[in-house]
Amino acid sequence: MKGFFYPRTASGDSSLIPSPPWFYSGDLLTVEYRTDPARVAELLPAPLQLAPSDPGAVAIIWADWQSCSAGRAELLDPVRSQYKEAFVVVRCSFEGQVYSRCVYIWVDKDFAIARGLHQGYPKKLGSIWQTRPHPFAQAAPQIGPGGTFGATLAAGDRRIAEAVLTLRSPAETNGFVNGHPMAHHRYYPGIERGAPDAYAELISSGASSFQGGQAWTGDVELRLFDSPTEELARLSVDEIIGGYYRQVGVGWDGGKTLAQLSKEDA
Amino acid sequence: MKGFFYPRTASGDSSLIPSPPWFYSGDLLTVEYRTDPARVAELLPAPLQLAPSDPGAVAIIWADWQSCSAGRAELLDPVRSQYKEAFVVVRCSFEGQVYSRCVYIWVDKDFAIARGLHQGYPKKLGSIWQTRPHPFAQAAPQIGPGGTFGATLAAGDRRIAEAVLTLRSPAETNGFVNGHPMAHHRYYPGIERGAPDAYAELISSGASSFQGGQAWTGDVELRLFDSPTEELARLSVDEIIGGYYRQVGVGWDGGKTLAQLSKEDA
Amino acid sequence: MKGFFYPRTASGDSSLIPSPPWFYSGDLLTVEYRTDPARVAELLPAPLQLAPSDPGAVAIIWADWQSCSAGRAELLDPVRSQYKEAFVVVRCSFEGQVYSRCVYIWVDKDFAIARGLHQGYPKKLGSIWQTRPHPFAQAAPQIGPGGTFGATLAAGDRRIAEAVLTLRSPAETNGFVNGHPMAHHRYYPGIERGAPDAYAELISSGASSFQGGQAWTGDVELRLFDSPTEELARLSVDEIIGGYYRQVGVGWDGGKTLAQLSKEDA
Amino acid sequence: MKGFFYPRTASGDSSLIPSPPWFYSGDLLTVEYRTDPARVAELLPAPLQLAPSDPGAVAIIWADWQSCSAGRAELLDPVRSQYKEAFVVVRCSFEGQVYSRCVYIWVDKDFAIARGLHQGYPKKLGSIWQTRPHPFAQAAPQIGPGGTFGATLAAGDRRIAEAVLTLRSPAETNGFVNGHPMAHHRYYPGIERGAPDAYAELISSGASSFQGGQAWTGDVELRLFDSPTEELARLSVDEIIGGYYRQVGVGWDGGKTLAQLSKEDA
Repeated sequence: MKGFFYPRTASGDSSLIPSPPWFYSGDLLTVEYRTDPARVAELLPAPLQLAPSDPGAVAIIWADWQSCSAGRAELLDPVRSQYKEAFVVVRCSFEGQVYSRCVYIWVDKDFAIARGLHQGYPKKLGSIWQTRPHPFAQAAPQIGPGGTFGATLAAGDRRIAEAVLTLRSPAETNGFVNGHPMAHHRYYPGIERGAPDAYAELISSGASSFQGGQAWTGDVELRLFDSPTEELARLSVDEIIGGYYRQVGVGWDGGKTLAQLSKEDA
Repeated sequence: MKGFFYPRTASGDSSLIPSPPWFYSGDLLTVEYRTDPARVAELLPAPLQLAPSDPGAVAIIWADWQSCSAGRAELLDPVRSQYKEAFVVVRCSFEGQVYSRCVYIWVDKDFAIARGLHQGYPKKLGSIWQTRPHPFAQAAPQIGPGGTFGATLAAGDRRIAEAVLTLRSPAETNGFVNGHPMAHHRYYPGIERGAPDAYAELISSGASSFQGGQAWTGDVELRLFDSPTEELARLSVDEIIGGYYRQVGVGWDGGKTLAQLSKEDA
Repeated sequence: MKGFFYPRTASGDSSLIPSPPWFYSGDLLTVEYRTDPARVAELLPAPLQLAPSDPGAVAIIWADWQSCSAGRAELLDPVRSQYKEAFVVVRCSFEGQVYSRCVYIWVDKDFAIARGLHQGYPKKLGSIWQTRPHPFAQAAPQIGPGGTFGATLAAGDRRIAEAVLTLRSPAETNGFVNGHPMAHHRYYPGIERGAPDAYAELISSGASSFQGGQAWTGDVELRLFDSPTEELARLSVDEIIGGYYRQVGVGWDGGKTLAQLSKEDA
Repeated sequence: MKGFFYPRTASGDSSLIPSPPWFYSGDLLTVEYRTDPARVAELLPAPLQLAPSDPGAVAIIWADWQSCSAGRAELLDPVRSQYKEAFVVVRCSFEGQVYSRCVYIWVDKDFAIARGLHQGYPKKLGSIWQTRPHPFAQAAPQIGPGGTFGATLAAGDRRIAEAVLTLRSPAETNGFVNGHPMAHHRYYPGIERGAPDAYAELISSGASSFQGGQAWTGDVELRLFDSPTEELARLSVDEIIGGYYRQVGVGWDGGKTLAQLSKEDA
């Protein structure tokens, strides 16, 4: 039986996702802000702890991606290659090191859900939109002073986040909250009614390769909205840190286990 | 941290799926046929073997579901409750018992993907459509002699299956291929590049409660189409066994582990 | 060149919609309420006037349809047959007669948009969901006392309406607001910049055939939400009249012109 | 009553599309080929005739657009701004002049359908995908030698066209078939059963402003597939003329009537 992911078959051709490495080219719109650190702590299961500095810092990141595996076949059938996502990152501490951690994420394709399962990103389906830059300004901003970008996120037919970013100047980075290796849980609920998790581990991963264009920063607004099935708005926007835009190219090629967790930990 | 599935939070409200039990009301259109048993065997990883009788029997089942958890809140926000699916079932043998096994399945909602991950159904997103019966015949068949139902399945913007069923007479069952407890693999690929599965088990599950209306059978056509990312058409239709229609209500409340698998087995 | 609608070809097979008659089988969830009659008047262009009695009455109707043309081919390829809609109806007066008039409507298929253009329904795309009854109650209400149905409407990734209806008793009708022949405008904006409409008429149409099951009424809640591109919430819910559920079968086979309008009237 | 398109209201805010001018920034992937001129002639209603030279030339164009009206508000809520389309263009002759004419077109948003109605483009909904260039090559081609772009089109859950273009060299144009003013029919079927069109005219329009980047050409493959509701494959690919890629910015601000047509002409 072959296939990195299900369904596994004799050829492996049906697998929802191919084996890593995976490659990504895309545009990131990031808003960083501070919320009550207690709200961040709620999202950090043991053995994770709040980051020692600026523990209430949150990044919400919209990304408009094209992606592929090593064979690049997906690029010629782009329904299998393009997807959009919005994700929420906080920082945490484990054994004295600071990690980034994605606490919420929405995507619009099934292959992206499956990659997230593997990497420990808690992906749901959503409807994600982000203004695109384009060489011709008739209906597009430029990546430069005055360029204005909107970004929206909906899930379950409710809008739950929207942002508007107007670029003002180049920046050294596109933020710091998503700048560490990721510390993610991977767990599999037990199949018997009421059983603990069948599997639980804490893993770390990050880009295996990275290129980035000039980052830009500017004025940004962010609005979060309530929903009965989402808790994003609980990470209320107490203070905006900054808004950023950057085009990047990324590779991903696996991670490593930080800790096998007892099934009650996850 | 609470939540049956990710993302886990202090309240558990964000979990993509609530804890079982889960409940389903829906309509099933089933086509059963025979293919080369060698093609079925390709989809049975050790320790599973072909079923001793009629080993090439296949069922493709379209289902139009409404579903909920014990609290039934999803029923009042039906974007979270309704979904459609098409799935392919074969039979297999394990330790002298015959099981049903879903080898391919497509659904159209994220909560259905997550429930499938838990239950070992290898779910992808697809576009699934199935004619509905209705009390008024202006634009609907009746569940009775002459009632004609169409069913289609597409994935990746390609149609991969379509069926037309014309009911002729009541039947004792709506088929036999999906009539056993399910034997499914649950596995989690290892996070390190090239690592074996981090977790692998063979589980069994089935309905915790079941009600069914009168089953009907009739004349049926089934067409399968090639796709670079799907292998459904490899289970070629050598001989039609029958076509069936039935309305059902089902509960599901967990399964049990049949075997912990060495990581190379999965 | 053949084809009821575009694109017209030698065969007519490409037409987005076939010629009438058109047929519909479906379930209607209706909420009727009163708003400020001045808000209704805003939506009645000359020569229409407010209805003489209960001029602020509004119906918002969710409908879960299966539909087809006389050949019924769509029923076997149900992606071309099934659609959902939510629409808002008021009453008006023209030359001493009372008409119903759809002022807003959202659907989820292109063929439904095209039929609406023909009939004068101002259709946009939306995401529409409505709880379905089913013979088995595991995850479905029954059409009877205590049966509870939810209904939601979103457009542009924002939820703009939601209702919950709990059935209590049979009713003589499923409301009165949508009970008259429809008086709709059909207009085509002029192609030159700033030109008046190229075509404008007031037409009337209604069902060419109709069957309906027992109507039910009960307790109902309705919430409307703001959106920058929708004005539904401007028809604020001042007083609930009633909530209704009914299954129906309908035929439609054309209408008639009530008045050719001067291009400035439309 | 205000509103360029329906639904018209006191404010005009609900109109599915705002008044022109409309603006577009996007990327065009064009494949030009020759088919039997008789197949083109089938799609040219009187008074149009085949173009005098190369009458069997066809262009199929994929476009990935961002669009807005003069106020540019849509750009900050990009679900209202971005859309994709694939369209098929032939040439024709009217009163001694050569025009381009869109004979088939699929888009993925309702506002695009409405703009098409106004402009005479026969728009249906489809699923359209096209590889995007990106500054970082991890998962993206560059607009330059060796850059490979895929493009696909599906409608009704069936794939009906796909192309692969590998860029080789700069080109003077991105084709000639779509290079003339458009000659389109605008018609409105009569509301009475069996009535002739209520309105029919032949209009011409083109860009009110245009900017284009360097066009590129290269090696191209194009495959068309049958569908019961589409006749694109009838324009069979007899000989490839060329494949092209170009980024453009366009304005549109109305057209002009070429001829009022008798209702039987349309």
